[in-house]
Amino acid sequence: MSLLTIGTVAIDSIETPYGKADRIVGGAATYISLAASYYTSDIKIVSIIGEDFPQEELNFLEKRGVDTSGVKRIKDQKSFFWSGKYHIDMNSRDTLDTQLNVLADFNPVLTPSQLESDYLMLGNLTPSIQMSVLKQMKSRPKITAMDTMNFWMDTAMDELKEVIKHVDILTINDEEAKQLSGDKNLSKAAKIILEMGPRYLIIKKGEHGALLFDRENVFFAPALPLSQVFDPTGAGDTFAGGLMGYLAGKGDLNFNNLKSAIIHASAMASFCVEEFGINRLKTLSQDDLNNRLDMFVDLVHFDL
Amino acid sequence: MSLLTIGTVAIDSIETPYGKADRIVGGAATYISLAASYYTSDIKIVSIIGEDFPQEELNFLEKRGVDTSGVKRIKDQKSFFWSGKYHIDMNSRDTLDTQLNVLADFNPVLTPSQLESDYLMLGNLTPSIQMSVLKQMKSRPKITAMDTMNFWMDTAMDELKEVIKHVDILTINDEEAKQLSGDKNLSKAAKIILEMGPRYLIIKKGEHGALLFDRENVFFAPALPLSQVFDPTGAGDTFAGGLMGYLAGKGDLNFNNLKSAIIHASAMASFCVEEFGINRLKTLSQDDLNNRLDMFVDLVHFDL
Repeated sequence: MSLLTIGTVAIDSIETPYGKADRIVGGAATYISLAASYYTSDIKIVSIIGEDFPQEELNFLEKRGVDTSGVKRIKDQKSFFWSGKYHIDMNSRDTLDTQLNVLADFNPVLTPSQLESDYLMLGNLTPSIQMSVLKQMKSRPKITAMDTMNFWMDTAMDELKEVIKHVDILTINDEEAKQLSGDKNLSKAAKIILEMGPRYLIIKKGEHGALLFDRENVFFAPALPLSQVFDPTGAGDTFAGGLMGYLAGKGDLNFNNLKSAIIHASAMASFCVEEFGINRLKTLSQDDLNNRLDMFVDLVHFDL
Repeated sequence: MSLLTIGTVAIDSIETPYGKADRIVGGAATYISLAASYYTSDIKIVSIIGEDFPQEELNFLEKRGVDTSGVKRIKDQKSFFWSGKYHIDMNSRDTLDTQLNVLADFNPVLTPSQLESDYLMLGNLTPSIQMSVLKQMKSRPKITAMDTMNFWMDTAMDELKEVIKHVDILTINDEEAKQLSGDKNLSKAAKIILEMGPRYLIIKKGEHGALLFDRENVFFAPALPLSQVFDPTGAGDTFAGGLMGYLAGKGDLNFNNLKSAIIHASAMASFCVEEFGINRLKTLSQDDLNNRLDMFVDLVHFDL
């Protein structure tokens, strides 16, 4: 089953209490597709880059089964660039620099084969771009998921709500759920957001795990208590990639599949934060993944 | 199996965004013994009260199988009094008033029957009182658990660490774990604290659940995502009461029993916050409890 991902492919400079990484590969679509590649093989990215983006990184994604022909390289321009510095507790960060560069003119036009994708992941982008992609799709994909952020709630709430109407799964963090719903209580916030359209809502709480809601049920996936979080950048995108990759591999969307998908997504995210950028995600073995999943079982399994 | 609880029996005035309760029954030992009474029958409290404490509330505890003969009433004096106001998010509160009253001279001398208790719960109190109780015990109880708070870390860290050396289970919250260990990472903090003496450490994270650590294992118990938290007062003590009540009913202390105990403890705490003070804990049926436990199973159970 084919998974289409729209999102940034970017250059990041990151500083954490444990070190610095200058101009490494980042971007939502990079993390999403790399994480998904551990679960499903037919993955396509649609994105935009400048001359400065290293070709060998695209080649690496290709080797992992990711079709990068939809990543448009613009001559004489630079890739989207983000630079940030994490605080000592790793839960908050300062953005030092954001340069839109090629992203300012990103206006994806999907090819016929992209238009027929079964699964669609709308990475965090301007809601108008997310909407334009949705409108281009030939028929409604089996599953559409979207990520977004508080910035779009501050600046484009109406457009954002229009996109939310049309997706199956919305993934946001706890503060964003409160902002989007206008309710400080996450259970009430979830009810309000599910009324906006999506069948499923995933609220990411970082080191406190993630909550999955539909109109009747709630499920909680823990985060592993890690003794070292090296670099949180991309953890949310990796989560989304693990989630959609797992679902694309399974085919069906129901609450039970989503529960498993969220555990896999959490496991992938737990790897992501162990090294800078996508480094740890490049070298996962099936044993690594199985061992990590066992840790999640041990972490929450109990008999009454 | 007998459970001895040392802690406050108090009068509280509480204001939350949902209402006000003036001069209601509170105190760690009250919540602990009431929660434990749903699991085991031989419970004794040691505490101190003034003339103002309502006798019918002690009678109620007696009816639930709690021996309150160790609660000393001091003539012409007032009970320990606490007054607080919760903020809109219910995660933080301002203490409006604290009057030690009878607690200033609390110096418990245990009776022979109290000295032979199998299970000992040291509620949050001056470490010197907790230590005095430990020293009086005829032999080391099967299980000793203690609760404490940041106030004692600020004012009596050395005495506190001396008590911690001698207990089996320490329950503190995440901020306290960071303060006690000097490490911001909870996994590392747990390792450091377990080196101080206790076999088990429970880190309470409020709405984010609780973590159980021993030297080899970690377990995570979620908090129920409640659509209404009415009054969080006493939730931590109720958790401790459910925990020790369950263990006293089971007999043995091992990681698996502790996992189940923490789920029961979390369930009891989830009831506690539904009404002011101890009100909800007064009227639980076995069906209420079983249904709540089922919700915890549903909340975290998954198949990979």
